[in-house]
Amino acid sequence: MPELAFITKASIDAVRSADGGADARLALIADVCRLNALVAVKQAGSGHLGSSFSALDIVVHLLYAELDVADAGFDSSDRDVFFSSKGHDVPGHYAALYGLGVVPAERLARLRRLAGLDGHPDVGVPGIEANSGSLGMGISKGRGIAWGKRQAGRGGVVVVMTGDGELQEGQNWEALQGAAHDRLGGLWIVVDRNALQSDKTTEEIVALGDLEAKLRAFGWEVETCDGHDHVLLREVFGGFRVGGDAPKALIANTIKGRGVSFMEHPAALVEGGGLYRWHAGAPDDESFERAREELAARIADGFAVLGLGEPAYEPLAPPVDPTRLEGEPESGAGARRPSVTDEYVVEAYGEELVRLGAEHEHLVVLDADLASDCRVRGFELAYPERFLECGIAEQDMVSAAAGLARHGFLPVVNSFASFLASRANEQIYNQASEGTKAVYALHYAGLIPAGPGKSHQSIRDISLLGALPDMTIVQPGNAEETRALLRWAVDEADGNVAIRLAIGPSPRRTELDGHVTPGRGSVLRDGADAVLVSYGPVMLHEALTAAELLERRGLALAVVNMPWLNRVEPGFAEGRVFVLEDHAPVGGLGDALRRAGVDAEIFGVEGWPACGTPAEALRAHGLDGASLADRIASALAR
Amino acid sequence: MPELAFITKASIDAVRSADGGADARLALIADVCRLNALVAVKQAGSGHLGSSFSALDIVVHLLYAELDVADAGFDSSDRDVFFSSKGHDVPGHYAALYGLGVVPAERLARLRRLAGLDGHPDVGVPGIEANSGSLGMGISKGRGIAWGKRQAGRGGVVVVMTGDGELQEGQNWEALQGAAHDRLGGLWIVVDRNALQSDKTTEEIVALGDLEAKLRAFGWEVETCDGHDHVLLREVFGGFRVGGDAPKALIANTIKGRGVSFMEHPAALVEGGGLYRWHAGAPDDESFERAREELAARIADGFAVLGLGEPAYEPLAPPVDPTRLEGEPESGAGARRPSVTDEYVVEAYGEELVRLGAEHEHLVVLDADLASDCRVRGFELAYPERFLECGIAEQDMVSAAAGLARHGFLPVVNSFASFLASRANEQIYNQASEGTKAVYALHYAGLIPAGPGKSHQSIRDISLLGALPDMTIVQPGNAEETRALLRWAVDEADGNVAIRLAIGPSPRRTELDGHVTPGRGSVLRDGADAVLVSYGPVMLHEALTAAELLERRGLALAVVNMPWLNRVEPGFAEGRVFVLEDHAPVGGLGDALRRAGVDAEIFGVEGWPACGTPAEALRAHGLDGASLADRIASALAR
Repeated sequence: MPELAFITKASIDAVRSADGGADARLALIADVCRLNALVAVKQAGSGHLGSSFSALDIVVHLLYAELDVADAGFDSSDRDVFFSSKGHDVPGHYAALYGLGVVPAERLARLRRLAGLDGHPDVGVPGIEANSGSLGMGISKGRGIAWGKRQAGRGGVVVVMTGDGELQEGQNWEALQGAAHDRLGGLWIVVDRNALQSDKTTEEIVALGDLEAKLRAFGWEVETCDGHDHVLLREVFGGFRVGGDAPKALIANTIKGRGVSFMEHPAALVEGGGLYRWHAGAPDDESFERAREELAARIADGFAVLGLGEPAYEPLAPPVDPTRLEGEPESGAGARRPSVTDEYVVEAYGEELVRLGAEHEHLVVLDADLASDCRVRGFELAYPERFLECGIAEQDMVSAAAGLARHGFLPVVNSFASFLASRANEQIYNQASEGTKAVYALHYAGLIPAGPGKSHQSIRDISLLGALPDMTIVQPGNAEETRALLRWAVDEADGNVAIRLAIGPSPRRTELDGHVTPGRGSVLRDGADAVLVSYGPVMLHEALTAAELLERRGLALAVVNMPWLNRVEPGFAEGRVFVLEDHAPVGGLGDALRRAGVDAEIFGVEGWPACGTPAEALRAHGLDGASLADRIASALAR
Repeated sequence: MPELAFITKASIDAVRSADGGADARLALIADVCRLNALVAVKQAGSGHLGSSFSALDIVVHLLYAELDVADAGFDSSDRDVFFSSKGHDVPGHYAALYGLGVVPAERLARLRRLAGLDGHPDVGVPGIEANSGSLGMGISKGRGIAWGKRQAGRGGVVVVMTGDGELQEGQNWEALQGAAHDRLGGLWIVVDRNALQSDKTTEEIVALGDLEAKLRAFGWEVETCDGHDHVLLREVFGGFRVGGDAPKALIANTIKGRGVSFMEHPAALVEGGGLYRWHAGAPDDESFERAREELAARIADGFAVLGLGEPAYEPLAPPVDPTRLEGEPESGAGARRPSVTDEYVVEAYGEELVRLGAEHEHLVVLDADLASDCRVRGFELAYPERFLECGIAEQDMVSAAAGLARHGFLPVVNSFASFLASRANEQIYNQASEGTKAVYALHYAGLIPAGPGKSHQSIRDISLLGALPDMTIVQPGNAEETRALLRWAVDEADGNVAIRLAIGPSPRRTELDGHVTPGRGSVLRDGADAVLVSYGPVMLHEALTAAELLERRGLALAVVNMPWLNRVEPGFAEGRVFVLEDHAPVGGLGDALRRAGVDAEIFGVEGWPACGTPAEALRAHGLDGASLADRIASALAR
């Protein structure tokens, strides 16, 4: 790991108060924020650099020049309000807030860590005005705020940054029409038009087309400019200030990865063979050093031009091993450390989907711009004519699947669980009500990984789909079971099936042979004192860890894998039964077991899912193996 | 009740095969369908005439002339596909299918009745291609079907009718962009541009603005014409047939209520003092006779012009008393007949909201074009500056509320439960995650009224919101409790509150004094043999009826009202406990009671909610008082 250091707030202050052109100073500050965001993401091990970099000139221009929050303060009800709807660009936003003294260095160093900075914007962080990361909600929120300001006679404009791919979400167009109807001239949006989605161009995924014409047709005043040119940004925003009562949109043409030559679109896309590498994730050490050196050199030049000398750096404490809890000694803590294998259940899913595609000509795969994460790129390459890319538009995807199912196709519908089960819920109900069959792949289900935060952690999806007639919800515990359950869903299930899938590496290889029987679980470990029922690789590992720890205490805990989450035929109604949910305690497997007559005690994700490393988040909820061992021992002692 | 009769299919056949201009004959058939739809709605006691009438020229033109389904049959995989996305116009669609011999007269006479015709389109009815009624999904479905046809090399165009107000739903714009991107030239939409929403103009609710420009900007080929002119419709569709690979949109300018002078917009709107009366509901006897006579006279003229003599009528059997089950004798069936009072809990809600508005300047009310049904018109009139009309855009409404809540307002958010809890679910989660407070009024919760069908009956909303942190879900049983719970939600609750509200008249006045204590229910009737716990006026009535019937059998059933649906402190853990859900058996009060340690047996809405009269639907699910009495007696005997 390279040594990490932020450029200090004092150095940023020096730039702000230096003589010289305001716009050149803003550009320099944006580069400083790029470097600090790069360092924060490297320390965190993940985060979105590409869109942080494309957005940063705009963010800095707004927070450091155009808007009044730096002076008025975030508590002023008359303040200007700025937030990012896409939220992926939050490392850059945090870096800008650090430069303003709103976020301290110690917290910037704890990006995606417990009690640090959430992986997507959260109002618990100073200076963050709205929770985002679930795409497409920001303009609506801004509309509400602008309407409220006008209603209450308060000052301040409301500025919402959106992505360009994000505009595929239909909610944006609801908000755009509503804001125009209500003549909310104090609402501005800035489209960070960096032309790329997660790894392909917007025009390739679902074309935005003539965005200016669209926004104008929706009743907005529209300007377009280079989003890295502070002179032009100043002009546009100045015009907005004196504009009429139509809401205002700036299409800011930007470059994804801006500021680091090898991350910049379009060169980076060409280099990646058509896929953009720098959307998410931390760069490896070598790429990090190259990027840092490039930024540092340009920043040093900028400081020199302003006659400021060298920028000052403050080193970060070395990152705590993210697999270990802070303050915990390395020795003796093994039980709390999730081991990690190279097995990803989602890879088994992607591979089996290709096999099933060969067997079933009516099988079609639908994607909402998460093809790489959901491992359906393999299917896309194998059967491009049966792959329907829907863009970031989950509702449209599900209803399109419904149409396909009515006409004899078997749609396999992919997105993250938190988006698919929730945003497209009514569409799934409608599809199900037609009596057709679809397979819903709920990726990234459960608490872990916990770095991206609440918007991405799905702890309600079982409850969201559980009351649907003719819907079976399953979650496989390892690769073999993933293949078997997907095959069961495609070949044997009569009605809809939702398959929850963990997105991260499996923490251990669980011995499940891939034979599945609807409603029936399998015993992973025997034990006479109590039974712990769970599902999915993350929680099965914690359950087994708990059993191993309890064994040392003389307690024999049986562990049962129950991949059928809403239709259970328990064979263990006798004795003490505990359920470990990778879900809220409400509406999960535990409730299903109780309906089946098992008096189960539930350990689930209580409250809001914690952001942090896996170890931190599991511990925060008392769901790591060690905590579970303690909780079960206490319960058995009562 | 006037005598009711349909014009026969034979008469329609005579028009189809008569000499004379094809377009005049289509116009005449559309009028016959208007008359038959009018009769079906009158028989049903409810249904949407205004948009049936505006759409009928288009529907008849498509089904009788432009498309091939009448010949190819609805089983042909190469058939043209037509369906209505809004679905409210289904009485007209059914009448058109009757004329084609697809729906028999006996079934047309059973609109909104069990085993008849669903109140919104359902694929269980012959000729219906898609379930709709939940707005905004149709273009997506059509997109899926058109993509599938092309993929499989099948013939046939896909035509989706949409409302104009319906276009406020964001999903439409997702589908429009996707269809253009995929160059689905075989997909056509027809916008029934009748300029009215449920009771006001689209331009007043949320303006559509320049719809042509919007659709063109989204990449569609667009035509506009008079939607009642069959010559023009023929021209436009003929052009679409030979058009390119862009999807095609026809903006059909129509008149809501077309064909019955006093129902026609804009005259009817003026007569209604700015509110349109004929969107939903059956006309009274006098209005029905006026409408029928006007249509019948014009139809008779049309037949005469074609030299066909008088149209033939077939009388309908007199409608079965909708409060009684068919075949059930009037005497002795009292227990099964819901009595009906003039108490509407939703009226109490609307009145109390106005009072609370006077007390709280920060209280704002948001609506998604259901202001009359949700009884928030009173608030709108009293405090127009604190009323935010969002149009049919539930996601935007919730996120706008989130923005308002972040800035010190208390938003009270209104829509039907089936739309609000489901379509805006992720937005509610996001709002809740910001730690602010909102009140969600879930109108039309539960099984009854059952006439509109699955799209409107909300039997999953408790499960959809139950796993949210900081969300209390309640349902009041009478007017006093409604006022008390709303007041508690506004004045005392710390976090979000969802209030389920029955939309129909309360079947009995329940003795609840309006004192509420979080988590605690109240005993409505004592009884030593078992306890039946329920909530809401509909099911409390059935519970009390069951208790009355069981008393005659010597069984003493206590009835407990439990308005707190996800946070319960039961005082009745002893003895046999039954729960009567106005909800699916999964995720409702019963699950909450079990989590609280009560071993409750659940009676809920199993499977898909039945469409029919209240008595029919309750009986179909075994949830009417008499069925419950039997089920409880059987359970106690075991």
